[in-house]
Amino acid sequence: MIQSKTDIRVRYEETDKMGIVYHAKYLIWFEVARIDLLDQIGYPYVKLEEDGHFLPVLEVEANFRKPAKFDDFITIFVELSQPSILKMKICYKVKRGEELLATGKTKHAFVSSEGRPVRPPEKLVNLIEKYSQQ
Amino acid sequence: MIQSKTDIRVRYEETDKMGIVYHAKYLIWFEVARIDLLDQIGYPYVKLEEDGHFLPVLEVEANFRKPAKFDDFITIFVELSQPSILKMKICYKVKRGEELLATGKTKHAFVSSEGRPVRPPEKLVNLIEKYSQQ
Amino acid sequence: MIQSKTDIRVRYEETDKMGIVYHAKYLIWFEVARIDLLDQIGYPYVKLEEDGHFLPVLEVEANFRKPAKFDDFITIFVELSQPSILKMKICYKVKRGEELLATGKTKHAFVSSEGRPVRPPEKLVNLIEKYSQQ
Amino acid sequence: MIQSKTDIRVRYEETDKMGIVYHAKYLIWFEVARIDLLDQIGYPYVKLEEDGHFLPVLEVEANFRKPAKFDDFITIFVELSQPSILKMKICYKVKRGEELLATGKTKHAFVSSEGRPVRPPEKLVNLIEKYSQQ
Repeated sequence: MIQSKTDIRVRYEETDKMGIVYHAKYLIWFEVARIDLLDQIGYPYVKLEEDGHFLPVLEVEANFRKPAKFDDFITIFVELSQPSILKMKICYKVKRGEELLATGKTKHAFVSSEGRPVRPPEKLVNLIEKYSQQ
Repeated sequence: MIQSKTDIRVRYEETDKMGIVYHAKYLIWFEVARIDLLDQIGYPYVKLEEDGHFLPVLEVEANFRKPAKFDDFITIFVELSQPSILKMKICYKVKRGEELLATGKTKHAFVSSEGRPVRPPEKLVNLIEKYSQQ
Repeated sequence: MIQSKTDIRVRYEETDKMGIVYHAKYLIWFEVARIDLLDQIGYPYVKLEEDGHFLPVLEVEANFRKPAKFDDFITIFVELSQPSILKMKICYKVKRGEELLATGKTKHAFVSSEGRPVRPPEKLVNLIEKYSQQ
Repeated sequence: MIQSKTDIRVRYEETDKMGIVYHAKYLIWFEVARIDLLDQIGYPYVKLEEDGHFLPVLEVEANFRKPAKFDDFITIFVELSQPSILKMKICYKVKRGEELLATGKTKHAFVSSEGRPVRPPEKLVNLIEKYSQQ
């Protein structure tokens, strides 16, 4: 399993009239955390796309326990398990200090630039394997 | 069960560099569809808030089958079951004509303006009961 | 001059913790109104892109007079003047009933799919000329 | 004049199907840069709101020269001049390394929590004066 974390500061734009962060914004934070995780194992997402691999989201779920607020300093903890032949699962924890604000999961397919499902690139699989053993 | 549907046209802003709608945007469409459903049973969400009831999202999940694209005409089908004492569950289907693009669920709490959990307003429960029997 | 109008209902997601619509959301409404205007003269933007013409925004300005709020029914009035050789200017008025909430302008370039500046497509120029005389 | 700068990394969500950052997203970056500037002079925006002062955007303009792209590392340079009795003007430059991507301006009113125009808080005026002389 590979773990990573990402720091985020809540933007005004991310709030809604309830005075808290609009729930769909957490999915964007998950994205930011995913990108950081791929950086960390040495295969940035931008490079993955250049190599012809896209990772659209197939499934997402999120549970909201406590609201994040404007200007909060938030940390997103990510965990990636070994990708199966066609899919990748990622788990997220959103925390403000010690407080758990939300949890989430995404499942991704690997697709070609034409949108056809493909196997995960060998280079990525190897990197995930390597970093999982640390 | 109460059913409703909402028509949406995909905005350019809702797309991303993959050329398809960014996944988190579906959650906003779910919101639009929820608002329409509450209108239809005669208790608009804006009125609910004026009456001191807020409906933050506790849980959300979505499954993406086929991508929506810019300028697509999309219909969101919503189903609301009878709220339990403290929660409300809503299901969504996103279709482009006959094609099913995505499905989703949200679970909501009823909270006061201070964010404390409260029972669903009687007026809403009665309206849902009334419309469920049609 | 070609005029068009577009009806919009304010989404919850478009509000911020000030309880009003976040200012950048008006630019998205301008986009929706532009798309409708191009539909009306018979050259939908999606078709323009299929024909290899893109219309990135070069300049935007907006003046905010009164805040739009959640669930407001808003009308965006658009005016397009004849495009010059390389650019297109569009003006916007955002109204809630008789109340003027905001005004804005955008200037667009015509570019190819590689991002190079090109002349506006003749078909569009002709359609704009035709509709301007009505 | 007070100057500040803010680093931003372009999110996937901020791109559109043209493969570049959607123009309205720059206004959100301006917001992030404004917030950082207020931090730097020692009066965070969140504190301003707690003290009953809100800074809605009255006017915004932006000029886009070169497109920002996914994963770009962007710096936003901000300049704040002394606020006039009722308004505050801020200028922005968006750069990727040495390349100037966009420029912008915002004008803000000071309003009370009820939305009435008020004078800028003395504490802020003094801080701006103090930092302007450095």
